[in-house]
Amino acid sequence: MLCAILDVEVGLATAQNRLGLVPDAAAEAIRNAAARLELDAARLALASRSSGGNPIIPLLADLRSAVGPDASNYVHLGATSQDILDSALMLVSKRSISLLVSDLDSALTTLAALADRHRTTAIAGRTLTQHSVPTTFGLKAAGWMVGVADARRFLVTIADNLPAQLGGAAGTLASFTQLLPGRELALVDAFADELGLEPSPLPWHTIRTPVIRLADALAGVGVALGKIGVDVSLLSRTEIAELSEESGGGSSTMPQKQNPILSVLLQAAARNTPEIAAELHRSAIAVDERPDGAWHTEWQAQRDLLRTTGGAASLAAELLTGLRVDTDRMRQNLGLTGPLIVSERVMLVAGPILGKNKVRQLIAVAASEPASLRKALTRELPDWSDAQLNDLLNPESYLGISDELIDRAMAHVKASG
Amino acid sequence: MLCAILDVEVGLATAQNRLGLVPDAAAEAIRNAAARLELDAARLALASRSSGGNPIIPLLADLRSAVGPDASNYVHLGATSQDILDSALMLVSKRSISLLVSDLDSALTTLAALADRHRTTAIAGRTLTQHSVPTTFGLKAAGWMVGVADARRFLVTIADNLPAQLGGAAGTLASFTQLLPGRELALVDAFADELGLEPSPLPWHTIRTPVIRLADALAGVGVALGKIGVDVSLLSRTEIAELSEESGGGSSTMPQKQNPILSVLLQAAARNTPEIAAELHRSAIAVDERPDGAWHTEWQAQRDLLRTTGGAASLAAELLTGLRVDTDRMRQNLGLTGPLIVSERVMLVAGPILGKNKVRQLIAVAASEPASLRKALTRELPDWSDAQLNDLLNPESYLGISDELIDRAMAHVKASG
Amino acid sequence: MLCAILDVEVGLATAQNRLGLVPDAAAEAIRNAAARLELDAARLALASRSSGGNPIIPLLADLRSAVGPDASNYVHLGATSQDILDSALMLVSKRSISLLVSDLDSALTTLAALADRHRTTAIAGRTLTQHSVPTTFGLKAAGWMVGVADARRFLVTIADNLPAQLGGAAGTLASFTQLLPGRELALVDAFADELGLEPSPLPWHTIRTPVIRLADALAGVGVALGKIGVDVSLLSRTEIAELSEESGGGSSTMPQKQNPILSVLLQAAARNTPEIAAELHRSAIAVDERPDGAWHTEWQAQRDLLRTTGGAASLAAELLTGLRVDTDRMRQNLGLTGPLIVSERVMLVAGPILGKNKVRQLIAVAASEPASLRKALTRELPDWSDAQLNDLLNPESYLGISDELIDRAMAHVKASG
Amino acid sequence: MLCAILDVEVGLATAQNRLGLVPDAAAEAIRNAAARLELDAARLALASRSSGGNPIIPLLADLRSAVGPDASNYVHLGATSQDILDSALMLVSKRSISLLVSDLDSALTTLAALADRHRTTAIAGRTLTQHSVPTTFGLKAAGWMVGVADARRFLVTIADNLPAQLGGAAGTLASFTQLLPGRELALVDAFADELGLEPSPLPWHTIRTPVIRLADALAGVGVALGKIGVDVSLLSRTEIAELSEESGGGSSTMPQKQNPILSVLLQAAARNTPEIAAELHRSAIAVDERPDGAWHTEWQAQRDLLRTTGGAASLAAELLTGLRVDTDRMRQNLGLTGPLIVSERVMLVAGPILGKNKVRQLIAVAASEPASLRKALTRELPDWSDAQLNDLLNPESYLGISDELIDRAMAHVKASG
Repeated sequence: MLCAILDVEVGLATAQNRLGLVPDAAAEAIRNAAARLELDAARLALASRSSGGNPIIPLLADLRSAVGPDASNYVHLGATSQDILDSALMLVSKRSISLLVSDLDSALTTLAALADRHRTTAIAGRTLTQHSVPTTFGLKAAGWMVGVADARRFLVTIADNLPAQLGGAAGTLASFTQLLPGRELALVDAFADELGLEPSPLPWHTIRTPVIRLADALAGVGVALGKIGVDVSLLSRTEIAELSEESGGGSSTMPQKQNPILSVLLQAAARNTPEIAAELHRSAIAVDERPDGAWHTEWQAQRDLLRTTGGAASLAAELLTGLRVDTDRMRQNLGLTGPLIVSERVMLVAGPILGKNKVRQLIAVAASEPASLRKALTRELPDWSDAQLNDLLNPESYLGISDELIDRAMAHVKASG
Repeated sequence: MLCAILDVEVGLATAQNRLGLVPDAAAEAIRNAAARLELDAARLALASRSSGGNPIIPLLADLRSAVGPDASNYVHLGATSQDILDSALMLVSKRSISLLVSDLDSALTTLAALADRHRTTAIAGRTLTQHSVPTTFGLKAAGWMVGVADARRFLVTIADNLPAQLGGAAGTLASFTQLLPGRELALVDAFADELGLEPSPLPWHTIRTPVIRLADALAGVGVALGKIGVDVSLLSRTEIAELSEESGGGSSTMPQKQNPILSVLLQAAARNTPEIAAELHRSAIAVDERPDGAWHTEWQAQRDLLRTTGGAASLAAELLTGLRVDTDRMRQNLGLTGPLIVSERVMLVAGPILGKNKVRQLIAVAASEPASLRKALTRELPDWSDAQLNDLLNPESYLGISDELIDRAMAHVKASG
Repeated sequence: MLCAILDVEVGLATAQNRLGLVPDAAAEAIRNAAARLELDAARLALASRSSGGNPIIPLLADLRSAVGPDASNYVHLGATSQDILDSALMLVSKRSISLLVSDLDSALTTLAALADRHRTTAIAGRTLTQHSVPTTFGLKAAGWMVGVADARRFLVTIADNLPAQLGGAAGTLASFTQLLPGRELALVDAFADELGLEPSPLPWHTIRTPVIRLADALAGVGVALGKIGVDVSLLSRTEIAELSEESGGGSSTMPQKQNPILSVLLQAAARNTPEIAAELHRSAIAVDERPDGAWHTEWQAQRDLLRTTGGAASLAAELLTGLRVDTDRMRQNLGLTGPLIVSERVMLVAGPILGKNKVRQLIAVAASEPASLRKALTRELPDWSDAQLNDLLNPESYLGISDELIDRAMAHVKASG
Repeated sequence: MLCAILDVEVGLATAQNRLGLVPDAAAEAIRNAAARLELDAARLALASRSSGGNPIIPLLADLRSAVGPDASNYVHLGATSQDILDSALMLVSKRSISLLVSDLDSALTTLAALADRHRTTAIAGRTLTQHSVPTTFGLKAAGWMVGVADARRFLVTIADNLPAQLGGAAGTLASFTQLLPGRELALVDAFADELGLEPSPLPWHTIRTPVIRLADALAGVGVALGKIGVDVSLLSRTEIAELSEESGGGSSTMPQKQNPILSVLLQAAARNTPEIAAELHRSAIAVDERPDGAWHTEWQAQRDLLRTTGGAASLAAELLTGLRVDTDRMRQNLGLTGPLIVSERVMLVAGPILGKNKVRQLIAVAASEPASLRKALTRELPDWSDAQLNDLLNPESYLGISDELIDRAMAHVKASG
């Protein structure tokens, strides 16, 4: 963050140099001093408390002293602390997000491969904790993929449009009217350009749309990855054991433990993101031209959000790469509810023939004695061949259009890429 | 919500009728029964607890009985409860948002007029509770306007793309493979079309992107309106009194009270929105093909969010329409910090001539004796005319490009309209 | 809530009557009118918006009109709206909590029985989703019991000390200095006494300790019950199936489904409580002598919290009463990890004899082939009898002091009763 | 935190030594090694990810290697990672809270002095942003004091009873049954004793009452201090200016700025606490015998909460010590609403004589022309002397029993000390 603050001060001086406000030598001196400046975060934090509540004033003192007396008057010319901090936060965000997106891309590649490889891998669909109807692991992976891809696309759109902040003390650009009359907006544009950020229609000191939109986008990433975390963690349970992580985490006392540690940490990270985003929403209800506390709350929250979602993306990429899929166990678990997992189909097929209540009764009996269903249907549907009955009760032939949906998901992801 | 549920069941039957799955007479019977059905919310709520935890099962029993024995088999054909509830929630959202947007439009019209009318109405810029440099009330209104317009645009984009939900028991569309083999996706499209919603690349039973994106958009509206609430409330304070509401709220004991009650209620509404959105983010980390609690949390949260933001929009529209602006008081308050409010300009102008430290000293003295600044500058800058000094110290001539920024804000809002 | 408001107005008049401020006839008239008054919640809600932002002013108009001209001057004498609303909220809380506590007591009775009955019912301990070492279902139930009992005790302590609010317009009791000079505090005491609430050291209009402490206590109940919800829901999973609910919830499409619907709804309720408590904490940072929005946010939050925790307690009591415990399945699941679940003991016992690394190696081999552990130990510990080895590897003999801990938990609950 | 972890491992070895399980030499070696061990937080954090998701395993490797081969078998004997981490978190909490309480005590001393010194300093009571009736600055300070004192007392009670955690792998103490049969609970007691913590009725691995109660107590401190922050910040506003901080924070661009920076930072800190407490509540709904993510979320949240409330207490102590009270300005602001601020008294006194509607009318006229009230009353109450009317309309004689309430607050704080 401190580096980004210096980058912003350099960007300001350079933009002002382009417009003739800052001499070449001064701009050069500022660039050189910023590159060399040694930052002492602890000292700056302490000094913040007794100055403006932010590190800009003490940091400027250091920078001006490093720049030397001639150029020091050109440092931070006409800007307010919030111009620098907001712009720096956007720079830091942009940089962090670029790393995060590369982890998301890695996760997406693995997810596409999983979805493709497991198109026909039947797995129990589970609703409200109970087996419902079969689905495929490929479709589950495709769902994860669509979640991540949509979160990624929204994030990238936001990240590509992060605005620079330059408004002066109260957002009127009055200092620049003094310094560069008639070219205030040109400076705003040049400054954004130097930082690789976008200019904004108005200074956004207390119109915090960019901050909350960014928070929404990052929180969306947390949700999409958290969904993978809870599913992997659940499917890794001893009694389910359909998934496992490449190298489980150990225990300090139980030598046999293989904990799904990446999905545990992924869940932990994802749990935090909704609330940090809410904190940023609350802070965005910002009174006056600069609020008395709300803005100061943003810094920690924004950093926590970037750190947490960045960590989640890295965990997810690693987790997915090493994910082990036990297709035998999936089939075996599917067998736990025998033919009951296709009760819906039995009802749809046999209901119109035998009457819904009759079928419901057969299924109720089968709840405690699964094998009874096949016997009862053999008796009640004497015209049906064994093969027909086998197929009716076979979970693996009741997968709907999961295959087609995977294609649709792939196409959607490609289109939104 | 119950009406929307019936609309969705009707939409399903109609779509299935279009595809030949449901006979004309049955579709007609379902439409008629739904139109006539008397809904008893309390009874359905109770019945939910002992059935699936949601009102669909008892509501279907009522609907089937109203439809009559022939057509009742065509009710809810192949759908799962979540298909209906999610689609109904999207319908309710779409309808509520259309009212909400019309209140936002009314607010935007008033805000544009305020921004235009008060282009040159000087007001103290306030940062960290203290006078900083002057700004205009027009620019403040323009900031509110941009905040609301951006929130509105995002909301409308989301609302125009709300998806229908149709996935069957575990999101594979397996029941429809049974009922309409080869035309499952055609049904998905027809169903969405009947409801005026969009089809979705995949069923989103536990990939809750639509829910969180909608939550983000609504929360963004809460923030944009909340900003207006806190500013109006503050500027209505007895000691500031620059704004007041058309008809203040009374007190049960103090006959003189004129409370800024609309902005108070607006703040109260806005305070809630970030957290409800966070609740929806948390619920979106949804395990399995249907989670055990997270989904059930959504319903109340989603309704609270629509109600709260809808209320906020209505309050804001009413508040802004009746907002009284006391420009004399604005000027008078600006005078409180005498020439100190343009210290920044004094520093920029006199600093290079007299030295920054010298100017800082003069300003420090003026902190306790404002009139001293003019005297000191007269002494220190003997060549300056009275008119020049007057202008230097006149807050109303230090408004930066607030006028130009208002134009820019207007253009931005028009472009994003 | 509206009834409680009337109760408070009656309590005020009665207390003032006891102190001679209100004549007997007027007090009687107020009591009678309040008992008869028909309340129209919708109309009052609308009227709130145009008056003080709360229902007191329109409700007082109704009450005064019902009381008649003579006594109407004695209605609400000297009080401020917040005195009434805060006191009414405390009354409503006290009443709701008494129902809630009775559900908690029912749950505690069942939990004690479960803990006692299943003292030696071995069940897999699960940490980070994996089998760790054995525990007992009785100890698990004892943990739930201690959680609920501690939450109950804290709640009861808080509920027994809920304060009445009586401070007048700004908390100075000035109106009562006018009306009852020298006996202001006597009135405060009499008023609290009439309502069955406690007097408070100071009016707490913006020192909201009572509100946040109550929120903490209710949220603690939500957490304690939510823990039961997540455990029951998990242990009801098809693949685990150690617990089930008496009558599972059905599905609109899958006739075989038996959903653990009470624990699902219990989880949904518990998920909400932390955040509502946080909302009340945020609102408690209340500026001035009455804040502009924060207080108004409390009402909905407080009601939501009472409703949600009350619902959770009722669900938990019903859930626990009908809970079915499948001890065979618990034993069977314990067998899934064969002797590995006692690896910790194997390490503690055999480690010092064979060396830790050697034992770790044997266990690693057993991870993929559980039966190998017994064979290896037979080979490596030739002096050990079969019985000794059986006992070493028997999960049911590695239950620690779970029995003694259950007694300790019982004693703790009794002591805290 | 890492130091506290070592303290806990030392406490465990020492307790086990007291019970004869660990030889003297080994206990000594562990104490010495822990005292000398160099901790590399970054390396441990990285290693956590690939081991159990927590730093215990890598830290134990370091500790064992420092202890040497003979004693290393006695390190961490029978404990699980969570035993160590939970106990360490309680140690860290206890230590941090002791510093925090000393800052609260300093704040309380200053608050008592402020309340005492300003017993009769009249100030406008403000409700819903508007002048309501007068109060005193002393009573306001007494309210702050009661808030802080109640929060402090609750915190101290909690802090004095923080429990140690010792349950072994799944909370059954099974490993200790192996190692110290019959003396498991003696070990639990000795361990708690060594750490200066309390023993617990049951292991609380997933019965997180201690964690949420601590969170509640800390959040309560945040609220009590935050209330001071918002009030000071508001009363420091340029237009109100009744309070100011000893040395205001500066601005990077406006040389005249004196920002109330301590109260701004105090508000920023307080804003965070409710939500962190909610996060800890959510994490306390902990499945199984150790949850898959919830527990891991606690660590950061608990640390953030201690850091944030600790910072808030330090800021508050400093802020209050240097707080400047401008009693002239308080009187002057009180004058802004002239006689209207005592309208309540005018109504109570003149209402019965002139009729309420008549008085309400006079006050309505006075809203735009304050001086008219005195004139009208002179006319309408011809028998009243000037002195009587002066007193009736004098805000400083309408302070209720604020003086008596301050005494009551002092007594309450002393009693709860």
